[in-house]
This record gives sequence, structure tokens and C-alpha cells, in this order.
Amino acid sequence: MGGGAPEEAIGVQGRTRVMIEGITPAVDGGRFAAKRIIGDSVAVEADVFADGHDAVAVVLLWRPPAGEWHELRMVGVGNDRYLGRFDATEIGRYGFFISAWVDRFESWRRELARRPDDDPDWASALAVGRDLIEVARAGAGEHPDGLLLEAVLVALADAPTAGAQRVVMLDEALAAIMERQGARDHGTRSDEMVIRVERPRAGYGAWYEFFPRSFGRNGHGRLKDCLPMLRYIASMGFQVVYLPPISPIGRTHRKGANNAPLAAEGDVGSPWAIGNEEGGHKAIEPALGTLADFQWFLREAAALNLEVALDLAFQCSPDHPYVREHPEWFRHRPDGSIQYAENPPKKYQDIYPLHFECADWRALWQELKTVVLFWIGQGVRIFRVDNPHTKPFAFWEWLIDTVTAQHPDVLFLSEAFTRPKVMNRLCKLGFSYSYTYFTWRVSRYEITQYFRELTAPSMRDFFRPHVWPNTPDILPEHLQGAGRSAFALRFVLAATLAANYGIYGPAFELLDCEPLGPGKEEYRDSEKYQLRHWDIHREDSLRPLIARVNAIRDAHVALQSDGSLRFHETTNEQLLCYSKTPPDGTGHATLMIMNLDPYHRQNGMVHFPLEDAGFPRGEAAQMHDLLSDARYIWIGTDHYVDLDPAMAPGHIFELKRRARTEHHFDYYA
Amino acid sequence: MGGGAPEEAIGVQGRTRVMIEGITPAVDGGRFAAKRIIGDSVAVEADVFADGHDAVAVVLLWRPPAGEWHELRMVGVGNDRYLGRFDATEIGRYGFFISAWVDRFESWRRELARRPDDDPDWASALAVGRDLIEVARAGAGEHPDGLLLEAVLVALADAPTAGAQRVVMLDEALAAIMERQGARDHGTRSDEMVIRVERPRAGYGAWYEFFPRSFGRNGHGRLKDCLPMLRYIASMGFQVVYLPPISPIGRTHRKGANNAPLAAEGDVGSPWAIGNEEGGHKAIEPALGTLADFQWFLREAAALNLEVALDLAFQCSPDHPYVREHPEWFRHRPDGSIQYAENPPKKYQDIYPLHFECADWRALWQELKTVVLFWIGQGVRIFRVDNPHTKPFAFWEWLIDTVTAQHPDVLFLSEAFTRPKVMNRLCKLGFSYSYTYFTWRVSRYEITQYFRELTAPSMRDFFRPHVWPNTPDILPEHLQGAGRSAFALRFVLAATLAANYGIYGPAFELLDCEPLGPGKEEYRDSEKYQLRHWDIHREDSLRPLIARVNAIRDAHVALQSDGSLRFHETTNEQLLCYSKTPPDGTGHATLMIMNLDPYHRQNGMVHFPLEDAGFPRGEAAQMHDLLSDARYIWIGTDHYVDLDPAMAPGHIFELKRRARTEHHFDYYA
Repeated sequence: MGGGAPEEAIGVQGRTRVMIEGITPAVDGGRFAAKRIIGDSVAVEADVFADGHDAVAVVLLWRPPAGEWHELRMVGVGNDRYLGRFDATEIGRYGFFISAWVDRFESWRRELARRPDDDPDWASALAVGRDLIEVARAGAGEHPDGLLLEAVLVALADAPTAGAQRVVMLDEALAAIMERQGARDHGTRSDEMVIRVERPRAGYGAWYEFFPRSFGRNGHGRLKDCLPMLRYIASMGFQVVYLPPISPIGRTHRKGANNAPLAAEGDVGSPWAIGNEEGGHKAIEPALGTLADFQWFLREAAALNLEVALDLAFQCSPDHPYVREHPEWFRHRPDGSIQYAENPPKKYQDIYPLHFECADWRALWQELKTVVLFWIGQGVRIFRVDNPHTKPFAFWEWLIDTVTAQHPDVLFLSEAFTRPKVMNRLCKLGFSYSYTYFTWRVSRYEITQYFRELTAPSMRDFFRPHVWPNTPDILPEHLQGAGRSAFALRFVLAATLAANYGIYGPAFELLDCEPLGPGKEEYRDSEKYQLRHWDIHREDSLRPLIARVNAIRDAHVALQSDGSLRFHETTNEQLLCYSKTPPDGTGHATLMIMNLDPYHRQNGMVHFPLEDAGFPRGEAAQMHDLLSDARYIWIGTDHYVDLDPAMAPGHIFELKRRARTEHHFDYYA
Repeated sequence: MGGGAPEEAIGVQGRTRVMIEGITPAVDGGRFAAKRIIGDSVAVEADVFADGHDAVAVVLLWRPPAGEWHELRMVGVGNDRYLGRFDATEIGRYGFFISAWVDRFESWRRELARRPDDDPDWASALAVGRDLIEVARAGAGEHPDGLLLEAVLVALADAPTAGAQRVVMLDEALAAIMERQGARDHGTRSDEMVIRVERPRAGYGAWYEFFPRSFGRNGHGRLKDCLPMLRYIASMGFQVVYLPPISPIGRTHRKGANNAPLAAEGDVGSPWAIGNEEGGHKAIEPALGTLADFQWFLREAAALNLEVALDLAFQCSPDHPYVREHPEWFRHRPDGSIQYAENPPKKYQDIYPLHFECADWRALWQELKTVVLFWIGQGVRIFRVDNPHTKPFAFWEWLIDTVTAQHPDVLFLSEAFTRPKVMNRLCKLGFSYSYTYFTWRVSRYEITQYFRELTAPSMRDFFRPHVWPNTPDILPEHLQGAGRSAFALRFVLAATLAANYGIYGPAFELLDCEPLGPGKEEYRDSEKYQLRHWDIHREDSLRPLIARVNAIRDAHVALQSDGSLRFHETTNEQLLCYSKTPPDGTGHATLMIMNLDPYHRQNGMVHFPLEDAGFPRGEAAQMHDLLSDARYIWIGTDHYVDLDPAMAPGHIFELKRRARTEHHFDYYA
């Protein structure tokens, strides 16, 4: 380098004048795919500019999974930003990139438009444009545009005056042809980026988790016993039934009730201690039934419009066949014994973690993939992955990439209750959604901050929150010893803050609120270790509320995605106000106001300018409370709210505009 | 890919468990160098994490220009973010990258610390740690650490109890050795990034632009006539004198006074119409003097602590030698004539733009670089580049990269008054600073929004604002016909909002406010086309104010950089309040309150909680107004201000804390 540098020191792109920057969507600059749902209109944007004052031409090239490349012009939307859209009509991986060049004909045309007829340089300028057309005509070959350009040149030669020449050269049809046929020399091309388009269930769904073994007619429940449960779950409007692991449960060091170190006779053990002499991850616990029973279960669920999600827990009990067949897949202690799971001083002797750093890791990866493919073969299309953050990121990226390449309808839910960067990375690398901290976010400040973060532009391209007020592992402190109002509040929050949510039932709707002990987050008599008996017909069950809210979700597209979530000010720290609007502006907006205090009536003002919601100034809105069916008339910006937790956790308003005049009876639609 | 994929389908990085993300500083993900000033402590941060619960080791590797690589441990600062710092002690390009791996000894050590003495697995766990030490000892070879590790192993063997073994193994000295000697298998390495470290003048400077030809003792001024001007400029405390082009001025189509299309006899022409039979970009206009005179000028300036910045205008008059010698470097019209600059209907027949898309572009680039190297050879180290946005980005990137590789002390100022994305790109690719829209930002809202954008984290790593209240091209509307107060206001704003600013004088300090005509932004009787005579000793000159403000800047490091700029609320739209604090917390903070209305007295409250500025609650601050030397006592959060534009445009407060007790006379320091 330096003054005497040879010519070779100058890069060969010296005549490339157009820059492309700031492409969206792009996760980590394109390292990871951005996520979309089938049916979405995918908006691609970029900053594109050249030096000087020339016009630039910008095209978006995109292709559907396994399809051909399509090209479309991107349009300027101000400040050198360009926009192009395509519709995601298939699931799978779409590719796109941006190509741009100096648009010589358009640059010339803009100048000609400003040039006076009597400009002494008129003829010279005209000749420049004619040259561009001649080159395009030559390049068009047999394309019909070639003939059209030929005709333009003839018309130009015949035009007797500058005015007539101007008409020929500024013709819009000519501009359109030159847009297609003009030279694209010294263009710039962005890197290729990927959009992963998933099926609607990745974007929206209400999940119900339960332990089939608790629903035996007498004693240990079998899958075949679960038809009443499936009907019950469907009656509440859930879309997904999620089952804890159904594989054979280990016997060595089996845990007893309430996590006792030693099981008593007849204790059923934790479903997450997978594998015994009956088989491993590709078998079914005999006490639950057979593969044929599971097939029956899937069919019955499907008949009720329920999809079944299966747990994927890549760990083994000491009795798992892998321990015998592939001891090299486990970590060995210096004395030769296999290392069980430990977090000193805690010991989990019933679990052998897989050793992903072993020399034979490639075979281990391949085997684990066959587990996923096995259940896909059985008809499962959603996997809730247990603790993915304790296995390597590279493994998940490979697994999800290769599985979804074959089966693009398969979805993975990351059960990673861990640090934010780790949770984010798992979503970036391919998990369709992730568990969240919602479980522990209680106050207005906590909920507002957290959901603003989750739905910020930088996160929503890769992270889809899946929120749970409880899980078999977590009875959060604010529900311990709490009453029906607290459970109702957490349920409505989950179901209206997030398009994807789940509950672990019947513990949830039956208000199970007993912790294992003081300072513990686990349930007492947890179904993880024992059978429970639930009276799902109890009077105080949340079942009616759950059914109502799920029906509201199904009827309102605003509640079926998360990008539109906005929070609104209230004058009372116990009142949380947020809205969701339909992505494409069709359908009703929804406004939620929750009383975060399950013990006292709370009131205050909500700042929600109706003008911001598209109401003309001074026009009233009918606020239709979908929970209570009450209707209120609001006008202006600040509105009084009074909420009694004994009646309802809050309002779920549908915003209705006056659709008819006073000559009609029913004013609002 | 898919279930039966061969093993080769699995990437070879399967055992790499540590992820590195979100590295800062990084401009466009590392595509461009981030900028720093010599003496800065460079803070490098990144998100680093592994799956599971193992400890990670994170090191920063960095090297000074042409120096060796250094390694330092990065420390966790929470939320999986790691920080490492090095001092920028040289100008030039520093390289850095981050390397990370699972820290097996530290992970093991954390577990051992939590393991009880009577743990049945104690011996087995101990053996794991001993194995790690043995591997490290073998790897240490002849390094003294090897002997130390040997000693640890002996001590361990001699330790009779678990308690004694714990003492040996948890020893901090052992941890430090293992940090150096522990295995680094399956590590991750980030891309290499670049920090460009520049000299202090890139970060801080007050510029004064003038036309030497206006300062002849009688008739056309020569460089040799400018000693009084240099002394005058130095007396006002400027650091940089910027000269419009000093090269020979073309004669063909020379413009007359007030941009008249035809020059009259004796008209001096525009200095930006470069080149005639006397020479081109590497020659000096004979009417100004000789290269020897320029050498004299540089010496006299240096003696006054003034650095000279030269204009770099890569365009030619029709008389430039390039036109004869390299006609291929210009755009030709179909009739063979060279295309002059045009923006229909405007014509600039006195300017031939260089044709950067010509076939011979490599030779053109090399020649233009010799222009820069020529003036560097003369002793110039700052170039103010005229309209860089009308030349290719790739050219500037190459030019600045190769010039600064040889001459890292050379600075380039981008005079790109164009669209934001274009201005940003020029700074990203290497310009040390850029002209800004400050020239047209007048209201509180405009100034606040704009400077928040300029100093946001995403911009300040590459964009350094250089603000000008006027230029020879721009007498902004708010100064047209305006009085002294308006000029004083714009001056103090420029000098306190930005560490780098400049004025075009003496037009500015002598309050020249006459536009070429209604709706025009150009000066009447602009020095671009004619000589002007200025009485720099006029009574109403802003000279005393300028001298005072430049002295304040020199005495307050808070005003010598831009990253700390913060705006504060006021109750009056005409009161603009902002603060700057010293980067390293040493020295006084400054608080500016400007009355944006140059015609009326304005008052109101300023919201500036002294607690936020580090004052203990309830403690008073002495607000020392450096402009008027008045002192006010403030306490609490909201403060009354009353500003009369006839007296001063505002306050420049130094915040002083009570340093002595009431037993002393002078309480504040």
C-alpha cells in the first residue's frame, strides 16, 4: 500500500457505485433466518444509495422453498430506504437478496425533464439518451421490447421539434421498457438472506399440558383412558395438548413422591428419567400403553382439533439402553463409573446426561435425530424441548435445520428457563418459540419492560414468546396460597399478552396453590413423581373463564400475533393497560385493562387517545367488554376504569366504531 | 440432508460450545473501523456464553499498529456480557478479536467449592480436578508454572483430609496458574475487528476559514500578506486555519462577481475552478504566491499554534492540464466535447467533473492520490474534502486507507451536505469528521433531535460532527438580516454543542448578513467570486465572545468530546439546556442554557436534578457562568433562568461542588 502501490492494489470494484446497507429483516446481519408465518406479507427494506445525483434501480430477488428466483422493483420510501414485498405462501426457507445499480436512463430522463426546449445543449443531451436506448435495443434481442424500442427510435427521428422529442423520450411506457431492458453495469449485490416461514401454529396457539397417568379409571392412567380429558381440553378451546415424556421410566435411583431420594414400592417415577429395559426414547412406557394406543390418542385429539406436542428430553436414566450399547456417549469419572447429573450439593442419580463433547459426538447427534424422526413418523409435529440450553447450540442448529428441511411443518419449543442471551440464541438458531420470564413478571413495571423487550423490532424477527403462568416445575410465589382471582388474573394476562401461551392443568384451573415448602417453587405432591386425582368438574374451576378467553382469542386476529402489542399509561400502578391491533388493519382492535391487584378493587384513569386508534377526533367508540359483555362509550383521550377482582381480572375490550346513523337502532359495528 | 445424511453433513465445529455475539465497538458488524482518539481507553464488550452451567474463559486479543498481539482476560459485567480494555497509545489501526472457551478447571473448582467434605463422590470429583492439573503441567513444558503445578500435585497427594485437599485445590494462586495453563480445547474465535486511532485534533478543534486573497495590502492578497490574519485568528483561540483551494484558477468560462456567467476584466474567479496553464492540483495560484510562500505560511501558522487545513476539490476547470493530458478522465458527449457540470437548467461551464466510471479509472485514482501525497509532502495534515459525495465511495475508502496507512496523522473532513445515509457512509469508510445539518437546525426540537441522533451509540463510533454556523456557500435564512445577538447565539451553540466546529470569517464575526437575493442562501458579494475588504477591528465584532468561548473550551475537557452530550427539559420552548461531562469523570461538568430567541428576553425553569450530576441530595452547587463570570447557587432539581439576548446568548456553567467548610472563605472548587 502507499503512494507507489501497483495498480493491483486497487480492488476491481472501483466502478461499483451503489451501496446497500441496513437490510431488514436480518437476524445478526443475516447469520440466522428471520421468522415469518405462512400468509404473511414479507416486507424487505434496505438503505440503497449511490454517490452523486444519479437515480438508482433497486430490485429484490426472492425465491420460495425449492422454487425459482423472482425479481421485483423495490420502491423508495424516503431517506434512501427502499421497500419490496412478497407473500409467504409456502412453509419452508425463502431466500432473498437485493441487487442495485445506477439507473442511467432514469437519471438522464430526470435531467431531460428539467432541460428547457431552447437549451443550446439539447441535441447533445438527446443523443446521450438515444445511445442508451440503442444499447438496450441491442440487448433486448428477440424480446418484444426490442421492437418497441425500435419504434421509439423511429418516432424520435421523425420528431420535428424539441417539444416533440421530449414527448417521445419522457413517455412512461418507454420508461417502463427501459426499466426492464436498461444496462445494469457495475451493479451491487447483497448477501443472500433467509426467511423461515412456518405454519400458523408457530404464531398462535393455546396449549394445555397434563399427565395422562393421573387419569386412570382406577390406578395408573393409560393413554386410552384420556378421551374424557381430551374432550374437556377441547371444550375449553385449546389448540395443543402437550404431554410430558411418555417413554419408559428408569428404575435405578427412581425418585419417590415429593422428590424423595428413594422411591417407595409402587412409586411411578419422573417421566424425565427416560429409559429402562423396555426401551429408550423411541418406546412408550408400558403403563401408559402401546404405540398403537398413542396412534389412537393422536387420532382422537385430531378429531377434536387438538394437536399433540411431545416432550423431547435428551437425557437418560441409568437403565436406558444407550448406557449399555453406547457407554461412550456418557461422561465417565476417573474410576470408570458414569457421571450422573450433579449440581453440588444436589445429586440426580436417576439421570445420566449425554456427553456431547465425547469423541463419538457425530454418531450421538445422528442417533438423537433418529429419535425426532421416529416421533415424526408417528405423526408428531411439535416438540417441546426440555432444557435445550444444556446441550450445544451447534447441535440444535444442525438438528432443526436438517429436520425442518425434510419436514418444514415441524415446530420446536425451547423450554430454556435460563439467561436471556442463551434463550435468544436458541431462538435465533431455529426454535420456533421459547418459554419466557412471564412466569415471574408480576408488577406493571416488570410486565411492561419485559414485553416491550420481547416485541421490540430487534427481537421479534427471531423470538416468539410462549408464556406459561405455571408449569409442573414452577408454582410461582405469587400463586402460592393465592385464591381464584390471582389465578384468573395470571390466566387472562398470559392469554392476551401473548399469542402463544400454555397452562399446566388441571393444577392451574383447579387453583392448586400448595408449594413443596417455604421458599420452594415446586408443587407439593407434584405429578412429576406421583399420580394425582383431579375433580375437573369442581364449581370453582376456571374452566368457564378459560373457555371464554380462548373463544375471544379465536375470534380476534388482533390477539393472534405479538408485534402490535403496545402499553398505555394509567394513573394507578395496579392498572395495566395494553392493546393489540390486527396486523393488516382488518378486524377490530383490542384493548386490555387488567387489575394487577387480585385482592382489592382498583380504579383510575387510562390514557388511550382514541385518535391514535384511528377514530376521528370527537368520535365516540363503543368499548365492548368481551369478558362481561358490557358496553361502554368512550370519547377523547383519558378514561375512567374501576375493576373489582371479585368480578373479573379486567376488561378485554373490542373497539367498535359507529357504523350507522341515529336512524338505525344498533349504532356500533 | 435429512435422517440418512452421511456423517460429513455435520460440521466439524460440533464440540465448539461457546458463542460470541454483539461485539462492540463494531461499525456495521465490523465491516468498517470504529474510531477512537489517542489516549482513549478502548472498551471492548461482547456477549459470551456456553450451553449448560460451565464457566467460560474470555480473552481479548489486541494489537497496536504494526505491533504484537496482546492478550488479556475479559471480565464479566453481568448478563453474559464481558468487558476488556486497552489503552490507545499510538495513532493508526489497532486490531482486536475475542477468543473464548469452556474453562474446565474453573467449572470444576466452582463445583468443588459447593461440595461437602463428606460427599461420597469427593474422591472421584477430586480425581477429575487432578487430571486437569496434570494435563496443564504437561502442557506447561519448561514454563515456571509447570513446577508450581508439580508442587500442587505433591501437596495434594500429601493432604490427609478432604478439608486439606480443598485448601490446596481452591487456592487462588492455583486458579491463576490454571487460568494461564488450562486447556483451551474447542474454543471460539470472533472475526478480527479494527479500531482506527487518530490524533487529538480529530476529536477536538475550532476552525477558521478565510480567503487569503481578500487580505492584500492593496489589491489581490498574497499568502505572504496573511501574517496579521494568522495573528488575529490565533488571538481568538482557533486551532485550525482552513484555506479554500489555493491552486491556479481557470480562465475559460470564469464566473464573475455574484456568480455572473461571464467574468469581467480583473475578476478573480472561483478557487474551486481548479487548474490553468500554470498548473493543476499540485500548483499554487501565482496571484497568491509560490510554494515557498506556502511553506512560510505553514511555518508562521505553526508558530502561532495554528494548523493549516487545505481544501481538496477533485474537479477541473476547462484549462486544467488533465484536460489536455488525460481527456479520457472526463465524460465526453456524443459530439466529442467534454461534458461540463450541469444540473439542468443550471450550467457550470467553468467546471469539468472527473469521470470516475471511465475505463482508465485506476490511473485516475492513482493520480488523485499523488495530489494528496504532494500536499502531505508540503506539510499539510488535514484535508477538507469538497463534495466527496459526488465521487465513488470505493475511491474514498481506498484513498483514505492507503494514505493513512503511510501517514496515520492525516485527517479528512467530509464536506458532504447531502442525504444522511450518504454522509454516514463517508464517515464509516474513513472520513475523520463530517459537516452536518447544524447549519439549518434552529429550534429546540430540531437541535435536540439532531444531536441526540449524532451522539447515539450507533453513530458515535464512526461519525464525528463538525458544525458550521455559516460557510462561504451558506448564509442560512435565520442569519439573513439578523443582528449581533443571532450570530452570537449560533456561535455559542456551535462551539458548545460540538467539540469540532468552524466559522467562515471574517464574514461571521463581522455579522455579514446580506443574501444574494430573496430565497437565496448564498452571500451577496461572495468571496467565492470576488475580493472583499473586512475591517476586523470593528467595535461590534464578535471577536471578544469568540476568544472567550474558545478559551472556555480549551480549559474544559467536558467540551472537547461529544459522547457525553445530554439534553435537559425546560419549561420554555425557547430555552435549550444541555450538558457535557468529562469522559473520565475528572474535571468539571458543564451545563449550557441558551436562549434560542435572539430578539426577546426569555425565562423559565430548567429541570436538572443535581443528584444526577453526582451531588449528594440537598447539597448546593455553585453554577459559575464562564461567559459572564457570574456565580449562582443551585439546589435540588428545578432552577429558574432568565436570559436577555442583549447581554448574552446564554449561560455556560461550570458546576462546582462545595470543597471547604464554612471556616474557609472560598467555598467552591
